[in-house]
Amino acid sequence: MLLYFQDQAGAARALANAAGLACHCVDVHRFPDGEVKLRLPHQLSARVTVFRSLHHPNEKLVELLLLARTARTLGAVHLTLVAPYLAYMRQDMAFMPGEAVSQRIIGAFLASLFDAVITVDPHLHRVATLAEAMPMEHAIVLTGAAPLSDLVVKLKDRPLLIGPDEESGQWVALAADRHGLDFAVCRKVRSGDRDVAVALPDVQVSGRAVVIMDDVASTGNTLAAAARLLHSAGAVSIDAAVTHALFDNGAIDTIRSAGVGQIWSTDCIAHATNTVSMAPLIAQALTEMFAN
Amino acid sequence: MLLYFQDQAGAARALANAAGLACHCVDVHRFPDGEVKLRLPHQLSARVTVFRSLHHPNEKLVELLLLARTARTLGAVHLTLVAPYLAYMRQDMAFMPGEAVSQRIIGAFLASLFDAVITVDPHLHRVATLAEAMPMEHAIVLTGAAPLSDLVVKLKDRPLLIGPDEESGQWVALAADRHGLDFAVCRKVRSGDRDVAVALPDVQVSGRAVVIMDDVASTGNTLAAAARLLHSAGAVSIDAAVTHALFDNGAIDTIRSAGVGQIWSTDCIAHATNTVSMAPLIAQALTEMFAN
Repeated sequence: MLLYFQDQAGAARALANAAGLACHCVDVHRFPDGEVKLRLPHQLSARVTVFRSLHHPNEKLVELLLLARTARTLGAVHLTLVAPYLAYMRQDMAFMPGEAVSQRIIGAFLASLFDAVITVDPHLHRVATLAEAMPMEHAIVLTGAAPLSDLVVKLKDRPLLIGPDEESGQWVALAADRHGLDFAVCRKVRSGDRDVAVALPDVQVSGRAVVIMDDVASTGNTLAAAARLLHSAGAVSIDAAVTHALFDNGAIDTIRSAGVGQIWSTDCIAHATNTVSMAPLIAQALTEMFAN
Repeated sequence: MLLYFQDQAGAARALANAAGLACHCVDVHRFPDGEVKLRLPHQLSARVTVFRSLHHPNEKLVELLLLARTARTLGAVHLTLVAPYLAYMRQDMAFMPGEAVSQRIIGAFLASLFDAVITVDPHLHRVATLAEAMPMEHAIVLTGAAPLSDLVVKLKDRPLLIGPDEESGQWVALAADRHGLDFAVCRKVRSGDRDVAVALPDVQVSGRAVVIMDDVASTGNTLAAAARLLHSAGAVSIDAAVTHALFDNGAIDTIRSAGVGQIWSTDCIAHATNTVSMAPLIAQALTEMFAN
């Protein structure tokens, strides 16, 4: 049985179909004072999968607390969280004394509610595995690099993949390796949440169809900065592909005005740019997990 | 040591002054994607009091999770939550099968983070004590009925206190008993979050200075419905006093247009109507708790 929330019905139902699970929408009533009331089906199966992608996470985390504790009283024995986008994975240490290490705290909180988690490209830096941040029986990480790479080779001729910063390096390498594509990675200098500058790598751009690829994009500033440099360097076309379309208001305009043609994303976060469904890979991971 | 958040600096500093505690503002950074980063003073005393009133609670609950877990790593041994307004106290049973009993779930969540809680008029119905909902070493309930009653007798001549519905009965009785005032309680019929009708009790209203009193008001509809009836019944003046000014947008207009003159509230929830500080009573409760 799969439980989902109305605002993520599309991706959740696609997963339920791919995995052959019955699915039910959680009834959420919002009171004027900001509290929520949740209602679940009153009889749950022993194994329950909860679909909740966690961008703008705080309201959703409280809903998951209410949901998971209630599910246990209604017959659920094993609870899996499918969170294609997993929040709070970047703050993995106290950069200044006194800072909350939110990755560990939110990870432990979710581990206290769920027995298993499946996510996509969780943007881990200083921890090697998701299980370190989120100590659970199963902590499964999938990647959007493969299906996005499959899309890109279908649509572009011998594309050159460009990572907009060093952090995207491993991820872009994965996408490139899958089809033996050329790739290179920009260097980034960040001076605030929204201010970034990048430097192009030493690679032949002129005459190439370039696709900027990354696991996540939010302001679009890094992507746009890379696109402007690639345009000046003589790229024939510039498109972009990201796993997590975490785009702020204005991000798409920022990216398009920098000369980016197509923007493709997975459905980990619902967005107008979604072109790749993660449902088949998540369904496969669910099936394999339950087979073990 | 008392920790507070910038948006509640006024009430928190008043409490710190009254209780003789050093106070520090928690540094909260909000990222564009809805995540927050918290930073606490990097050395905490063994006893830490956290001031956080919990209207519009969900963001705040996640911040308290991050704060409490971090505080334990920075030297805090005993954590007290001062939440003048405590959220999620009304859903104390599953009214329909499958509903989350959020009072118990949020109560247990806060009990997993804090050693003690102090709150004001938590609007408990079917549980006798706060400790049932929130199993902690200390779960202390204060009331705004006394200081509001003190205010009302100063400002009005022989006021008649009116509770706008049965739920306010005990609370209005408390306010009335304190100064031997007359009181009575309306009957309420509710047909939705915002639709209410009330019936006046059998009491002489004509010629009286009436004060409608309740522990909480949100839409103001109940208060306004009572005020219109009291006006028709010949009240000389109609004012209102509530502990929790949980007023929605438009609530004050609704209440004023029903003929209510003054609206008084405690500072449990910051609002333009705040006239009574709860700091002295909360400081006293803190002092007594630590003395035990």
